[in-house]
Amino acid sequence: MFSDGVFAIAITLLILEIKIPEHEEVVRAGGLYHYLMELWPSYFSYMLGFMSIGIYWSNHHWLFCFVKRTNHVFNILNIIFLMTIAFLPFPIALLGDFIMDPVYKNAAITTYCIGSLLPIVTVFVVCFYAVQKHRLVDPRLSNKFIQTFMLKLLSGFISICIAIGLSFEHPIISISIIVFLYIIYLYPPDTPFYDEE
Amino acid sequence: MFSDGVFAIAITLLILEIKIPEHEEVVRAGGLYHYLMELWPSYFSYMLGFMSIGIYWSNHHWLFCFVKRTNHVFNILNIIFLMTIAFLPFPIALLGDFIMDPVYKNAAITTYCIGSLLPIVTVFVVCFYAVQKHRLVDPRLSNKFIQTFMLKLLSGFISICIAIGLSFEHPIISISIIVFLYIIYLYPPDTPFYDEE
Amino acid sequence: MFSDGVFAIAITLLILEIKIPEHEEVVRAGGLYHYLMELWPSYFSYMLGFMSIGIYWSNHHWLFCFVKRTNHVFNILNIIFLMTIAFLPFPIALLGDFIMDPVYKNAAITTYCIGSLLPIVTVFVVCFYAVQKHRLVDPRLSNKFIQTFMLKLLSGFISICIAIGLSFEHPIISISIIVFLYIIYLYPPDTPFYDEE
Amino acid sequence: MFSDGVFAIAITLLILEIKIPEHEEVVRAGGLYHYLMELWPSYFSYMLGFMSIGIYWSNHHWLFCFVKRTNHVFNILNIIFLMTIAFLPFPIALLGDFIMDPVYKNAAITTYCIGSLLPIVTVFVVCFYAVQKHRLVDPRLSNKFIQTFMLKLLSGFISICIAIGLSFEHPIISISIIVFLYIIYLYPPDTPFYDEE
Repeated sequence: MFSDGVFAIAITLLILEIKIPEHEEVVRAGGLYHYLMELWPSYFSYMLGFMSIGIYWSNHHWLFCFVKRTNHVFNILNIIFLMTIAFLPFPIALLGDFIMDPVYKNAAITTYCIGSLLPIVTVFVVCFYAVQKHRLVDPRLSNKFIQTFMLKLLSGFISICIAIGLSFEHPIISISIIVFLYIIYLYPPDTPFYDEE
Repeated sequence: MFSDGVFAIAITLLILEIKIPEHEEVVRAGGLYHYLMELWPSYFSYMLGFMSIGIYWSNHHWLFCFVKRTNHVFNILNIIFLMTIAFLPFPIALLGDFIMDPVYKNAAITTYCIGSLLPIVTVFVVCFYAVQKHRLVDPRLSNKFIQTFMLKLLSGFISICIAIGLSFEHPIISISIIVFLYIIYLYPPDTPFYDEE
Repeated sequence: MFSDGVFAIAITLLILEIKIPEHEEVVRAGGLYHYLMELWPSYFSYMLGFMSIGIYWSNHHWLFCFVKRTNHVFNILNIIFLMTIAFLPFPIALLGDFIMDPVYKNAAITTYCIGSLLPIVTVFVVCFYAVQKHRLVDPRLSNKFIQTFMLKLLSGFISICIAIGLSFEHPIISISIIVFLYIIYLYPPDTPFYDEE
Repeated sequence: MFSDGVFAIAITLLILEIKIPEHEEVVRAGGLYHYLMELWPSYFSYMLGFMSIGIYWSNHHWLFCFVKRTNHVFNILNIIFLMTIAFLPFPIALLGDFIMDPVYKNAAITTYCIGSLLPIVTVFVVCFYAVQKHRLVDPRLSNKFIQTFMLKLLSGFISICIAIGLSFEHPIISISIIVFLYIIYLYPPDTPFYDEE
């Protein structure tokens, strides 16, 4: 699967953002242990990035449990969704580099929140196209299931919007909202259910 | 599939061209927001690159709907086609870096147009080899379908040639032709049809 | 498979850590042969890294011989395991850069040992979750087989802990323990066996 | 397939070796066209590298036409083979950077020839292990076919050894031998044939 490849590459590229130090940088930091200790924002953003792309991958797979067919428009929308996933390493690396910066911390967190918003917007469009009038799903798929599912995406969208708004003044709260959101998404998604006929 | 892997990696490598700034570069740009704003040509070329490789991937898959067999020559030609796809991140990154440069703008756009021409030439050769004398396709595949399809490739080729010619004097028109071409390719490709016997 | 993709990318990224020299660096080293000769720690860490990720991949595949089902928790644990695999290129590159450094050698080897410990911890958790109460394995899978298998993982874990402890004083012994461990893992893993009922 | 992934990534990483210029480098080269023109050794090594990895991939697939089973030793040998494939981007990039260098040209070509020798050695070991006593192949696979096939690998090995020997004095002849070898490998490999019983 092309999609799986893009997910796998985007997730593995994250490690390239943790830079191997030159000899001088290690000396300046006062030893290799000190240097590696000071990298903790990079480890944090690596983990946050890996878990977020991993969760998107897991949910993307789950999506294909009830999307039974694809068409050209769906494929194009899916490519646009993958474009926002493959973009994630950029704001994640920014976050790792600037989260401890006294001046640019807020801007880095705002950027990270905006970066996190993009895939949720595009996945919403992909799902909306698939489920609208049961276009690409089993016609018996329960409307109640579809509504609950779309509402969950919408509440994720609204939460990240709030995180963006707060990031200018209270960046720590913004990051907490995002981490909290990923913890919620760790819970297993609902099993699709079908109307009897 | 090896081909899918090459497409997936080429498309995901595009994000590596958007550089994470050093602290000094951010200061020089007058803040992180300013810095990120000034990167818009990189975002533009990222999107253009992602959509173009995505569309090639989508059409490459569609091709395998009617190419029923492969042989050694076809595989070698396919590798040469993939070579031109995997080359795309280079002219795309050049475009992102120099599209706003007053001196080198035209050269960057010409290079990008030439880079875009290469895959269309190689995919033409791949298709020509496959359909000529119905070598690797269903013998009942309609000649009319084949002709329409090859003509479409040819008109894409001619459009990009015109774009290259114009790029020396009117680079904006060249870029517009390429963007317009990709928008056309967003339309679903024709369904193959077969002669009755 | 997404997992295969992550393994394949992490293993291939290792080559990016062997830097292509600038012209001046070659002159400074006294010629290209000298320069390439001096890179031997990088070749050593490339081989060590490739074999270690390769062995993890091989064992990961073998694991799926007797894990018959997956669930959401298993997938999340698997993503966390992949996170520790995709992290390996970082301590491996550090090892290659600092293994000959008189001052930072020990710290680099300690870091490499800790990096090697992480996947064994996470794979232990993945396996424990799968086999506990025969959750995701064939109910007839022999308890004896499971115990032997978990004990092997545990002894690998203890060996690496000893290697970490020794790395502060005797880094050469630490590296030898790790290399020795990989040589043991080169032996074919046991065939799962089942209880008769 | 894990192997396919490694091939796909190694082949696509080649483009990363063609560096995007800084603004000053373009000025120094006397314009973007001049700069891009001067990169021709990089394009040459990109094409050579892409075709060589592509041909190895194509032959690796063909190998699995008559290798019917795998075992643990075969998998480990295959990982060692992939290690030599994933190493190729390094000597290929060296070749691109130093092929026009008056001083280091010979050393770069020798290194490239040695890099090309490694996969042919490891693929020989993989094949020898598989066909020896018909270990992993159909027992009826013709001995004559096996001998012809192994002799071809051996003659490739000897040719590259000659190329290495000549590279110290006549690097152009060395490169010609390698290019000639790849052209020969472009020919379709033999179809396996079987003894009647």
